[in-house]
Amino acid sequence: MKENAPAQGVWPPAATPFHADLSVDFERAIAHCKALLAEGAHGLAVLGTTSEANSLDLAERETMLERLVAAGIAAERLLPGTGTPSIGDTVRLTRHATSLGVRGVLLLPPFYYKGVSEDGLFAFVSEVIGRVGRDNLRIYLYNFPQMSGIAWSPALVGHLIKSFPKTIVGLKDSSGDVAYMNRLFESFPGFAVFPSSEALLLSAMKKGAAGCISATANTQVAAIRALYDGWQGAEAERLSRAASAVRLLMQKFPLIAAVKAVLADRAKSPDWARVRPPLDPLSPAERKEVVAELAKIAAEAPA
Amino acid sequence: MKENAPAQGVWPPAATPFHADLSVDFERAIAHCKALLAEGAHGLAVLGTTSEANSLDLAERETMLERLVAAGIAAERLLPGTGTPSIGDTVRLTRHATSLGVRGVLLLPPFYYKGVSEDGLFAFVSEVIGRVGRDNLRIYLYNFPQMSGIAWSPALVGHLIKSFPKTIVGLKDSSGDVAYMNRLFESFPGFAVFPSSEALLLSAMKKGAAGCISATANTQVAAIRALYDGWQGAEAERLSRAASAVRLLMQKFPLIAAVKAVLADRAKSPDWARVRPPLDPLSPAERKEVVAELAKIAAEAPA
Repeated sequence: MKENAPAQGVWPPAATPFHADLSVDFERAIAHCKALLAEGAHGLAVLGTTSEANSLDLAERETMLERLVAAGIAAERLLPGTGTPSIGDTVRLTRHATSLGVRGVLLLPPFYYKGVSEDGLFAFVSEVIGRVGRDNLRIYLYNFPQMSGIAWSPALVGHLIKSFPKTIVGLKDSSGDVAYMNRLFESFPGFAVFPSSEALLLSAMKKGAAGCISATANTQVAAIRALYDGWQGAEAERLSRAASAVRLLMQKFPLIAAVKAVLADRAKSPDWARVRPPLDPLSPAERKEVVAELAKIAAEAPA
Repeated sequence: MKENAPAQGVWPPAATPFHADLSVDFERAIAHCKALLAEGAHGLAVLGTTSEANSLDLAERETMLERLVAAGIAAERLLPGTGTPSIGDTVRLTRHATSLGVRGVLLLPPFYYKGVSEDGLFAFVSEVIGRVGRDNLRIYLYNFPQMSGIAWSPALVGHLIKSFPKTIVGLKDSSGDVAYMNRLFESFPGFAVFPSSEALLLSAMKKGAAGCISATANTQVAAIRALYDGWQGAEAERLSRAASAVRLLMQKFPLIAAVKAVLADRAKSPDWARVRPPLDPLSPAERKEVVAELAKIAAEAPA
């Protein structure tokens, strides 16, 4: 694997397990990350939205990366989220991750602010890059306007790529806006774009997507890997339908809680279902429903 | 002043000056805070939105409080913002502020998240209060859904007051929603409600408001103090019109940048106009306009 080659393939945004006192269960997190890699993940988009990264404090975020690397997960297989509303905290997290040798970082915009200008966002990213000051820094913009309140517009993405061609190498889109994604493919060939989920992966691969970063990859990484490997093959449509069915079911529920409920069911450990406030776990009825519906999908479309 | 009596009066959310390298100019910040108090502020709602608190890193936020107290500003005259999306960072900032002896803290909801339940928000606040674990903690909820994406609904406010009657003592509203504010006055007599700005202060005082926390108090604290002191007097309407005219003018511009542009003009120091990205300073034309319009207002309505 070439150092800092653009990330490609299936990179699950690993969910973060918590103990009863809400502290991070690092042992379980390490085991979960190793299992995802063993089941076919190319790498791990840790500390993103699904990881409840913004519910972790800064020190916990740093510790998580250190623990994963210490446990033997190669840093080049990690793509952590490091964006915060402040330049200072973003630089701190980004420099820490880059020092460990991660493949790159996923950068949320400064999400407290609303209605900010593209010049202001450009200045924010530019300050972060300058202050991190590391040649091996690679940034994947993280577009999730429904949560962050700020979109990375194609015009701004183009401006950033042009100004920092070695650093701004990709974008994870969570907007679900297909027109937006297609515009990125058309405008920036070679730019590593990750579509919203596995439900869009097949059509996105045909347009040049880099792979898949999706919450539900926590629960079906092998199925997504099969689709990623087989998107040009005879089974592509069937693989896409199977992976999409799981995704479309799970996104009917609050997604992070649903992912954790499924992990709890599989591990036979209710501890996995825990989320940090302000998120709520699924209700017992919702837990039952998501598990039963998943079983139905599995029975209808055996692998 | 009784220890931890609810905050009342005029508490400007002090703007934060930056050096050319964007580091905090603590000396100028201290001078500005002292000037606001000398001109009539009862206290200072530091580290709020107008202070660009979410553009400061956690360490800078702690240093700011320590420097203000070390410079001789009584901690009981400080009401810092301490809310972040994570319980851990919020507890860190809140505990630090409370240890210094501040009057209370302004609490933003965990603003990365959207569409969270009232149960989830209640659990967030409850965890923060429990983990801070200090008897002298006083929380003022900070309602600014346009920026944070999350409102403190009257039902949730009621639930929090009932569960933590000694701790949840007030609310700063920045929504501009008069019906919301009136509902708080009607539902929670004695609860310290601060309306959106001085433009609503007179009508809010008639309904039992605690006072005023307003961005533009950085530029006209004496006028707001006169209105606060005189709201029952013969001059109340005139004082309200004068203070409101300044506010209504300035909020036509990006407000934080406009406040800093006016401070820069008065101090004859362009340094004051600096904001941290992603915010932009006013354009030269906007700066001229806001200063000229303010001069016109002052000429039309001499104090």
